[in-house]
Amino acid sequence: MATTTNSTNPTTASTLTPVTVIGLGAMGQALAGAFLKAGHPTTIWNRSPGKGEDLVARGATRAATPAEAVRAGEVVVVCVVDYEASQSILEPIAADLAGRVLVNVTSDAPERAREAGEWAAEHDIAYLDGAVMIPTVMIGTPDALLFYSGDKAAYDKHEGLLKSLGGQSAYVGADHGLAAVYDLSMLDFFWTSMSGLVHGYALAAKDGVPAASIAPFLKSHISLLSLLVEETAKNLDEGAYPGAEANLAMEVEGIEHILHAAERRGLDVSVLRGVRDVAQRAVDLGHGADSWSATVEGARNPA
Amino acid sequence: MATTTNSTNPTTASTLTPVTVIGLGAMGQALAGAFLKAGHPTTIWNRSPGKGEDLVARGATRAATPAEAVRAGEVVVVCVVDYEASQSILEPIAADLAGRVLVNVTSDAPERAREAGEWAAEHDIAYLDGAVMIPTVMIGTPDALLFYSGDKAAYDKHEGLLKSLGGQSAYVGADHGLAAVYDLSMLDFFWTSMSGLVHGYALAAKDGVPAASIAPFLKSHISLLSLLVEETAKNLDEGAYPGAEANLAMEVEGIEHILHAAERRGLDVSVLRGVRDVAQRAVDLGHGADSWSATVEGARNPA
Ligand SMILES: NC(=O)c1ccc[n+]([C@@H]2O[C@H](COP(=O)([O-])OP(=O)(O)OC[C@H]3O[C@@H](n4cnc5c(N)ncnc54)[C@H](OP(=O)(O)O)[C@@H]3O)[C@@H](O)[C@H]2O)c1
Ligand SMILES: NC(=O)c1ccc[n+]([C@@H]2O[C@H](COP(=O)([O-])OP(=O)(O)OC[C@H]3O[C@@H](n4cnc5c(N)ncnc54)[C@H](OP(=O)(O)O)[C@@H]3O)[C@@H](O)[C@H]2O)c1
Repeated sequence: MATTTNSTNPTTASTLTPVTVIGLGAMGQALAGAFLKAGHPTTIWNRSPGKGEDLVARGATRAATPAEAVRAGEVVVVCVVDYEASQSILEPIAADLAGRVLVNVTSDAPERAREAGEWAAEHDIAYLDGAVMIPTVMIGTPDALLFYSGDKAAYDKHEGLLKSLGGQSAYVGADHGLAAVYDLSMLDFFWTSMSGLVHGYALAAKDGVPAASIAPFLKSHISLLSLLVEETAKNLDEGAYPGAEANLAMEVEGIEHILHAAERRGLDVSVLRGVRDVAQRAVDLGHGADSWSATVEGARNPA
Repeated sequence: MATTTNSTNPTTASTLTPVTVIGLGAMGQALAGAFLKAGHPTTIWNRSPGKGEDLVARGATRAATPAEAVRAGEVVVVCVVDYEASQSILEPIAADLAGRVLVNVTSDAPERAREAGEWAAEHDIAYLDGAVMIPTVMIGTPDALLFYSGDKAAYDKHEGLLKSLGGQSAYVGADHGLAAVYDLSMLDFFWTSMSGLVHGYALAAKDGVPAASIAPFLKSHISLLSLLVEETAKNLDEGAYPGAEANLAMEVEGIEHILHAAERRGLDVSVLRGVRDVAQRAVDLGHGADSWSATVEGARNPA
């Protein structure tokens, strides 16, 4: 922790940094709840009234306007649906934000975070952009991962406060877009994998095999993925894709088998076709004897 | 182990079941090597001469013809490029195979394994179909996973011998196609995930973030996948997709963000578009408030 005053001891609550939470959707409420639990004086505001009654019962102060809310906090955390919404709230009160630390954990594109960063700089606002990588139920736990990027001094000063939202909070760089970049990159992997999981189960079900019969065996593939996360990263960063004995051309053949089996069983194959096409393009570009990492060449060269 | 005689003690080698390996590609050689190591009298044959010289040096007997090879083994393991190749070798020597156990671990579609099963039944051949889920370097290790389906009595009798190829060998059912079904289902998940991994890294690289910076954070997503393997299986088998607070409609929005970011950066988005379309179709079918498992409805109803 950056400051020892940011302890979670409730008896020292009044000495902790006052924080404001704007946006009381599912996530905003979880964030405000974690600040309250850590003992921070917490002020809340939401566009529609009525949300966050239990936060007030737990000691939060409800502000009547965004400006009033902002003036109560040394750190202002915003969590609404998107940047259009957050900027519509923040732009009219830029003068009130000046000199404070603004932390926007609304999910959006890196470009929007960078625009917000430029806007904040123009108005003398110390700006951190954030990305919440976990569901609301995990907010405040030691395992919870949130990314922050932008003003390093602001992060260092308020690391303790930010870690009350998630023990795994990480500052990833000065470019305000980076938290969103990490977010998108990881979710790209995650949702694509989840799509493969459901599709794999659906394929087995077509031949009468319940998903529960496949599930225990997937442990070994998950372990393999864990190893390949590191190895693939190394390959991509070095731009070299040394093939072990398993090589891309052979792997494309294997994927072709899956694709045809799924097609014959009447399943959607748009994802598998994309996987096959990207890998095949890498083979066509001369990477047939390389490892799977070489599919990045197919990904970088759309059809 | 089913039979105590199938021990790996080399001093009892001469009492172990004699085995024949047909096909000495990378995988066939690994299989024959594991049988030799376990002490089984091992006879080998390959279409092209010259392969497997080191196996002969280690004690394998090279047969001049497939028929001669088959007659030397109580169990005959076949591992060639596909079923067209294996049937072209086996059909002319059906009479020699009669009364023996044939184990075909060549990768192909479940349909081909079932056809081979019918052919074997007509010729009084005890038939097991197999699927090798691991690279050659893992053959013979305790962690190595191979699936078998078909003749249960043959599997039970020769489980010890088969486990010398891989400690995690599993018999998955009487339908000869099942080993291939498990294979395809698991590889569907695996290759789709590997595609997402490479694409996620490629996305981060476009904004200057090396894959090595993302990799350590993927551990938490891999753990999450591990949990969801079980939960998703339960949902699919029950045909109910109870949404937690995160719901499919919201998740489709998130995927839309990734898709647009990737598109703006000039990356191929065919896989992500497939993921989005399948999930969106499930939303359109009324599953917007359900969990990700509901995307199976999109997968089962191609556009
Ligand atoms: N929930 C999660 O598990 C989770 C996980 C990771 C990231 N996130 C991200 O966290 C952010 C908030 O998510 P959430 O789950 O809290 O969403 P939510 O429950 O739908 O709440 C949306 C919030 O945005 C506000 N809002 C929407 N449009 C607005 C506008 N034009 N002006 C002012 N306020 C507006 C809403 O105010 P009203 O009450 O007035 O409508 C509400 O406070 C999103 O970017 C989401 O991607 C959520
Ligand atoms: N290698 C792996 O890591 C791995 C992993 C899992 C599963 N598998 C599966 O194991 C099987 C064999 O793979 P591999 O790596 O050993 O392949 P490989 O090294 O390419 O060897 C292919 C084998 O098939 C034989 N063959 C091809 N066409 C034939 C024909 N018409 N008649 C007779 N024999 C023919 C070849 O004989 P010649 O020497 O005469 O060409 C050779 O023995 C494949 O189904 C593969 O999918 C492999």
